[in-house]
Amino acid sequence: MLAVTILGNNSALPAFDRHPTAQIVTLDEFLFLIDCGEGTQMQMAKYKIRRSCIQHIFISHLHGDHYFGLIGLITSMGLLGRELDLHLYAPAPLKELIDLQLRVADTTLPFTIHFHPLGDEGVLVRHEKFQVSCFRVNHRIPCWGFRFEQVRAPRRINPEKTLQHEVPSSFYDRLKWGENYTTKDGRLILNEWVTDPAPKPRSYAYSADTSYDENLIDKIKGVDLLYHETTYLKDLGERAIQRFHCTTHQAATIASMAGVGQLIIGHFSSKYEKLDLFESEAREIFPNTILALEGVSYRV
Amino acid sequence: MLAVTILGNNSALPAFDRHPTAQIVTLDEFLFLIDCGEGTQMQMAKYKIRRSCIQHIFISHLHGDHYFGLIGLITSMGLLGRELDLHLYAPAPLKELIDLQLRVADTTLPFTIHFHPLGDEGVLVRHEKFQVSCFRVNHRIPCWGFRFEQVRAPRRINPEKTLQHEVPSSFYDRLKWGENYTTKDGRLILNEWVTDPAPKPRSYAYSADTSYDENLIDKIKGVDLLYHETTYLKDLGERAIQRFHCTTHQAATIASMAGVGQLIIGHFSSKYEKLDLFESEAREIFPNTILALEGVSYRV
Repeated sequence: MLAVTILGNNSALPAFDRHPTAQIVTLDEFLFLIDCGEGTQMQMAKYKIRRSCIQHIFISHLHGDHYFGLIGLITSMGLLGRELDLHLYAPAPLKELIDLQLRVADTTLPFTIHFHPLGDEGVLVRHEKFQVSCFRVNHRIPCWGFRFEQVRAPRRINPEKTLQHEVPSSFYDRLKWGENYTTKDGRLILNEWVTDPAPKPRSYAYSADTSYDENLIDKIKGVDLLYHETTYLKDLGERAIQRFHCTTHQAATIASMAGVGQLIIGHFSSKYEKLDLFESEAREIFPNTILALEGVSYRV
Repeated sequence: MLAVTILGNNSALPAFDRHPTAQIVTLDEFLFLIDCGEGTQMQMAKYKIRRSCIQHIFISHLHGDHYFGLIGLITSMGLLGRELDLHLYAPAPLKELIDLQLRVADTTLPFTIHFHPLGDEGVLVRHEKFQVSCFRVNHRIPCWGFRFEQVRAPRRINPEKTLQHEVPSSFYDRLKWGENYTTKDGRLILNEWVTDPAPKPRSYAYSADTSYDENLIDKIKGVDLLYHETTYLKDLGERAIQRFHCTTHQAATIASMAGVGQLIIGHFSSKYEKLDLFESEAREIFPNTILALEGVSYRV
């Protein structure tokens, strides 16, 4: 199971009760936090996200609307007596900031933060069930996107068929990963006779704050769900370029060229009270587009 | 006019939709912000406080629930194009933190912050209408309280009486400050014949986070309204000592010994969902006690 829950869908200036960027990615029993704008811990409380279950936090870049809520979240985890390690993947200067904030408060956390500074593109977390990798995007300051992928899942043993073909249970692990079985008397038992296909692995890419950049396409190609920012409607293309952001048409063009399954758009400028046009404009280019709405979980 | 608007009344861990500490002091046409926990800018939007009118911000100490919202507020002021200078009175390390946060974001504010590090007790802002001073309180890390006082207001000219006694308007300014007038033919016109008394100057003291400390009494003596923290109910006196906080009875005892007009209590622990007992317990010692409720303005 892979899903994305939106905690904040606004750009830098909070407005119309929309909050700065934060998302929860749920991958089976794991919770990941992407970005952590001011008020994220309150949004988590509102939408019943369990802080204690988060082991990995990814911060795309050091504009405040993507991280000002992090120190509050970390401090609260400490006040709640957390002991579980926390892995933090973020631009390097964030470590200095957090250390300074804890020092001036004379606070020692009861848990360990493993700080992983973002640098080269590549895999950040490798697990038997999933992997998370990062890639560079084109913003005013160094900025990274994140790609969450379920890895190939094991095929499912069909117990009735394995019994019928007399495959010993000691061979099940090899069956799960696709091997055929040869019986003692030399008969070949094809894997697909005794197993069912693995569920299709799913993928999600979060491309953070970015200007229109076709270099992004290779990095997100074919994901099932792409989050791409649309700070502006299509008529503000000039402003989007100046501020290293995107319009609806630009995001939808990237989604289309990358052949993604679905596009989810967010990071709406506080210029806009209503969001309807974001959806309709993006759909002019890429019909399978949805709005990132706060408090909603989108199943990939 | 002197009033206090509560934006956050909770202690460190946000809970039950209560927010960390922040208050607006309104003094005639001036707005002051005291402390700025995470989410203060959202609370300001909710309660229609105009950020642009704030020229002075006072931060009591560097525990996060008293300042984590400051950098977001400052950044938003910048995004909104503020040009007015901002005066920030806070423990010295906050400057380093803000500078670092602006630097990593590659942000230059369009307005000037005048940073005034807190140190000695005394007057911070002196204006013809008011003064703001700071005093030390007893907390786990260096911590300051703030005292807002209207200064002696000018007496009010009674135009009918000045006309009747033939006092020239060129003498009005001296009348306002209490002088008598002598006519050309030597008659003495007493000030009280031609002016009405000035309104009584009002005062408010915010004693921040503090343990029970009778040294506080001299610093807040006789204020019209005292804010004193009551993190705990009266049965948790031991915990209050350990954590440099106060109980209801302790806050009310200080208010009583200092002879203040009214006590307003806040900084409620997230242990407590309901606040009724805070009020009733404090009133056992100091009857004129009220709860600090978010979104409410208390006229001094």
